[in-house]
Amino acid sequence: MTQTSATTARLLITCPDRPGIVAAVAGFFHMHGANITALDQHSTDPTGGTFFMRVEFQTPSLDLSRAALGRAFAAVVGDRFAMDWRLSYADDTKDLAILVSKHDHALMELLWRSTRGELEGRVAMVISNHRVAEAAVTALGVPFHYVPVTAKTKAESEARIVDLLGDSVKTVALARYMQILSPELVAKFPNQIINIHHSFLPAFVGANPYHRAFERGVKLIGATAHYVTAELDAGPIIEQDVGRVSHRDSVEDLIALGRDLERRVLANAVRWHLEDRVLVHGNKTVVFR
Amino acid sequence: MTQTSATTARLLITCPDRPGIVAAVAGFFHMHGANITALDQHSTDPTGGTFFMRVEFQTPSLDLSRAALGRAFAAVVGDRFAMDWRLSYADDTKDLAILVSKHDHALMELLWRSTRGELEGRVAMVISNHRVAEAAVTALGVPFHYVPVTAKTKAESEARIVDLLGDSVKTVALARYMQILSPELVAKFPNQIINIHHSFLPAFVGANPYHRAFERGVKLIGATAHYVTAELDAGPIIEQDVGRVSHRDSVEDLIALGRDLERRVLANAVRWHLEDRVLVHGNKTVVFR
Amino acid sequence: MTQTSATTARLLITCPDRPGIVAAVAGFFHMHGANITALDQHSTDPTGGTFFMRVEFQTPSLDLSRAALGRAFAAVVGDRFAMDWRLSYADDTKDLAILVSKHDHALMELLWRSTRGELEGRVAMVISNHRVAEAAVTALGVPFHYVPVTAKTKAESEARIVDLLGDSVKTVALARYMQILSPELVAKFPNQIINIHHSFLPAFVGANPYHRAFERGVKLIGATAHYVTAELDAGPIIEQDVGRVSHRDSVEDLIALGRDLERRVLANAVRWHLEDRVLVHGNKTVVFR
Amino acid sequence: MTQTSATTARLLITCPDRPGIVAAVAGFFHMHGANITALDQHSTDPTGGTFFMRVEFQTPSLDLSRAALGRAFAAVVGDRFAMDWRLSYADDTKDLAILVSKHDHALMELLWRSTRGELEGRVAMVISNHRVAEAAVTALGVPFHYVPVTAKTKAESEARIVDLLGDSVKTVALARYMQILSPELVAKFPNQIINIHHSFLPAFVGANPYHRAFERGVKLIGATAHYVTAELDAGPIIEQDVGRVSHRDSVEDLIALGRDLERRVLANAVRWHLEDRVLVHGNKTVVFR
Repeated sequence: MTQTSATTARLLITCPDRPGIVAAVAGFFHMHGANITALDQHSTDPTGGTFFMRVEFQTPSLDLSRAALGRAFAAVVGDRFAMDWRLSYADDTKDLAILVSKHDHALMELLWRSTRGELEGRVAMVISNHRVAEAAVTALGVPFHYVPVTAKTKAESEARIVDLLGDSVKTVALARYMQILSPELVAKFPNQIINIHHSFLPAFVGANPYHRAFERGVKLIGATAHYVTAELDAGPIIEQDVGRVSHRDSVEDLIALGRDLERRVLANAVRWHLEDRVLVHGNKTVVFR
Repeated sequence: MTQTSATTARLLITCPDRPGIVAAVAGFFHMHGANITALDQHSTDPTGGTFFMRVEFQTPSLDLSRAALGRAFAAVVGDRFAMDWRLSYADDTKDLAILVSKHDHALMELLWRSTRGELEGRVAMVISNHRVAEAAVTALGVPFHYVPVTAKTKAESEARIVDLLGDSVKTVALARYMQILSPELVAKFPNQIINIHHSFLPAFVGANPYHRAFERGVKLIGATAHYVTAELDAGPIIEQDVGRVSHRDSVEDLIALGRDLERRVLANAVRWHLEDRVLVHGNKTVVFR
Repeated sequence: MTQTSATTARLLITCPDRPGIVAAVAGFFHMHGANITALDQHSTDPTGGTFFMRVEFQTPSLDLSRAALGRAFAAVVGDRFAMDWRLSYADDTKDLAILVSKHDHALMELLWRSTRGELEGRVAMVISNHRVAEAAVTALGVPFHYVPVTAKTKAESEARIVDLLGDSVKTVALARYMQILSPELVAKFPNQIINIHHSFLPAFVGANPYHRAFERGVKLIGATAHYVTAELDAGPIIEQDVGRVSHRDSVEDLIALGRDLERRVLANAVRWHLEDRVLVHGNKTVVFR
Repeated sequence: MTQTSATTARLLITCPDRPGIVAAVAGFFHMHGANITALDQHSTDPTGGTFFMRVEFQTPSLDLSRAALGRAFAAVVGDRFAMDWRLSYADDTKDLAILVSKHDHALMELLWRSTRGELEGRVAMVISNHRVAEAAVTALGVPFHYVPVTAKTKAESEARIVDLLGDSVKTVALARYMQILSPELVAKFPNQIINIHHSFLPAFVGANPYHRAFERGVKLIGATAHYVTAELDAGPIIEQDVGRVSHRDSVEDLIALGRDLERRVLANAVRWHLEDRVLVHGNKTVVFR
């Protein structure tokens, strides 16, 4: 993928498809000195479908301030094509919060990749309803907030979480956070909360899915990363992967493989989200990789 | 895998696990001149679990006739360990029947592999409720039987199919056969009828699964081969595989990839079944590859 | 991928990268009534790199004839950006010739997919230095030409092949054709001849690679499809895939898996080539899937 | 895989194949109260080939001391079949040393899995010619030894490493250790030193392989874990895996994917080695998974 630098900016567009969109956008950018370095577009159907575009451009030769560029784009292009659009700049704050319960494998993978510079932005905080991960997180210099949750204190705990997230956190990764978020909290972060969960062929809904997958003798197990919506585990899918198992694998082996998949799949989903590669349309995603 | 020759025989065993099984079987074989060339065993739990074993051996130095070997094995080993066991010989008839409706991709793959010698036994017949595949099948010298099915004639058609299968057919591959077999027919061929169907993460039960998978934006689609049981699509899984898709793929692309997966997954499942590599226990399989 | 219809046309571009290319192309198309339905672009480096673009557009509202469109594009856009460009239309002849020796697995896969409409264009002929595949090919109504090759007759045989290919064949698939083409023949079809060969980690150059891979105990075997250049097996790679093996697999199993991989990898490479998805730059490809 | 407990023991056997081996081993174990809970065997060729076996058994009912069991096995079975054999017990010391240079991804993965109990034995020490990983390693309570290496001090440094490894270390993982070990050091640890390196199709021998793979436009990159022998990177392969790349990936993306593959492939290889699942024969491995 194109390497991001301090002068990189991105424009994401969703709009009804009709002739002339690419020409209008590219013409506008060219006119204002925004040099396009990557462009992906997708159309569900050229006749009456939906159009998606991701443009990565360089800002050094821009002839307008950022605020003016946004206003001009809206006036000249965005409104004309009824676009849902968003501009982001490399130096925009990209604070990521990670919520976790006891299992820390997906959390540690995210922290690790962040440390290595594989994730844009920074991990601003880790919030957990357990203290299991506290030492490992603080050792990396990342703020750790312990927010216990009980049936009685759920509302209160969520209020505390919202407080902690504040205004700067733009992305929330649920790295095996075993509490269901309230619809209100979910609504505050539309397509900004990413969850990871196990997946099987066929699906095993309910308790102990690994035990049931084991009993059914599945040959593949998987993991799915998706945006959180009001309906549990039914939001837009960002990424999925599977691994192979056999009768020789115990339930514990299945669970261990599940951990590996969850680490990898969540890390990829968060990475692409932070790089503005994921557009949501209805209940599905367009991922420009 | 070990290459099969005219002198190859196999023993499949399922029994309660307890000490001494391997010693008893290996000792018995050694005593009677059966040279073990491959041995796989699996135990669900050494204490009170189930024991599975597949032994491939060479017959030239056998000191007993086949019938006598079976009787002796039962008397000396099988009964003592309460074994469910089965002996098969390379020259046993291994007739495979393929049932198909209109979509012939999985059928053609099986015929192709059979022609190349990649499948043990022979394709004894193809039965279809449509004439689509007739020319291609008969061109390969394989008998083709047209058995139309309507709501009214279902029982009659099944009787005709049972007649055609006769006593020699030991394995039935449903290569996209879009009729549901009656429980009676299924009961006649326990763990001998292999079906292929599409699989998704998550599952899409009901009509038009590819359209629904497309609308949900899944990133993987899959196929599952399983033994047919009375419960639809819920029998023991033999093999599964998946392929990757993106927003760029149309419903037609998903369906085409599904075809590729179905070809490969069904062909592998049938191959392993014919090589006596698949043992069924409860609703799961042990596949000794 | 976007479905192709009779009104689909495509433009492929390679040129030095500099600001304004997308705007110029999109503006030109918009002005002349060419409705863009898919656009992929890639830039090796926005500063001094190479720019690649594939545009799929619909022709019904074009305000110019095809010839005029080409001339106008060259005059207004192509020359200005020093573009290497090519326009193709859905009804352009897309004759594919398949060359094969004795092993027919990759040939049959291509024919099969062509029959199912999975490949654009048509298989115009099969040329072979053996008669093995003749019956199967002619049964499908595809012309089969037997062109034997010996050390002495090599030049003559190639002349005969060139004759057969004529002017209409634009793509040649070497589906296990075990003769080395002369540099002259290769030069006649730059980036139009696609070969498939086995690949290993590590590589095994020379005779009996499967035996040597077996002896080395590799855990993966693979296949690579590439354009043929003057240097043997060193042309631009279009597609690769691998499969997993273990110590249980015999040399014959490795070879059988290799066949499966070759079928799939060559079929995908040929498909993408025919859909104008592959651009070559130096010794590497850009594949817009 | 079978779960290991404190009463688990294992026997690994390599010997010329001939009739009666399984019967002799199973009979011996049965007679002495060793309950077999897992058995894998493989034969390269039943006539004149090599025979491999891995037996996992439970020790509570053994009627001999460990020392006596070994002597009895040698006398009754081992010598008779000219076996190369080895017995190991769950409480044998399984000290693992990890050698690393600057890149710590594979090191951290091993430490992480060890912490989670996914690796048998314990990480006894980390040795490095750089101090990069020191803080992270000591934070986990693992001894870190800094042993710088220069062209002049190479022999001295190796002597220091041998000293540190002492007698208890049985397995050495080279987790991106960028120094070539001397043949003498390698000879001290036959089939006990595991290295990880990148792999490509085709291979790129020499400097900057990722850059060259990028320039060649490969579609897959891979990693190989192997035992270290006197010949560089040519020892018996334990595990391999690959990941997919496209023209959109930069050299840095390839390197990042390579890191992911190296982490996973080395961790699996070390895990299987520690579980006595890997037998070496000539220059290839039999991996009983």
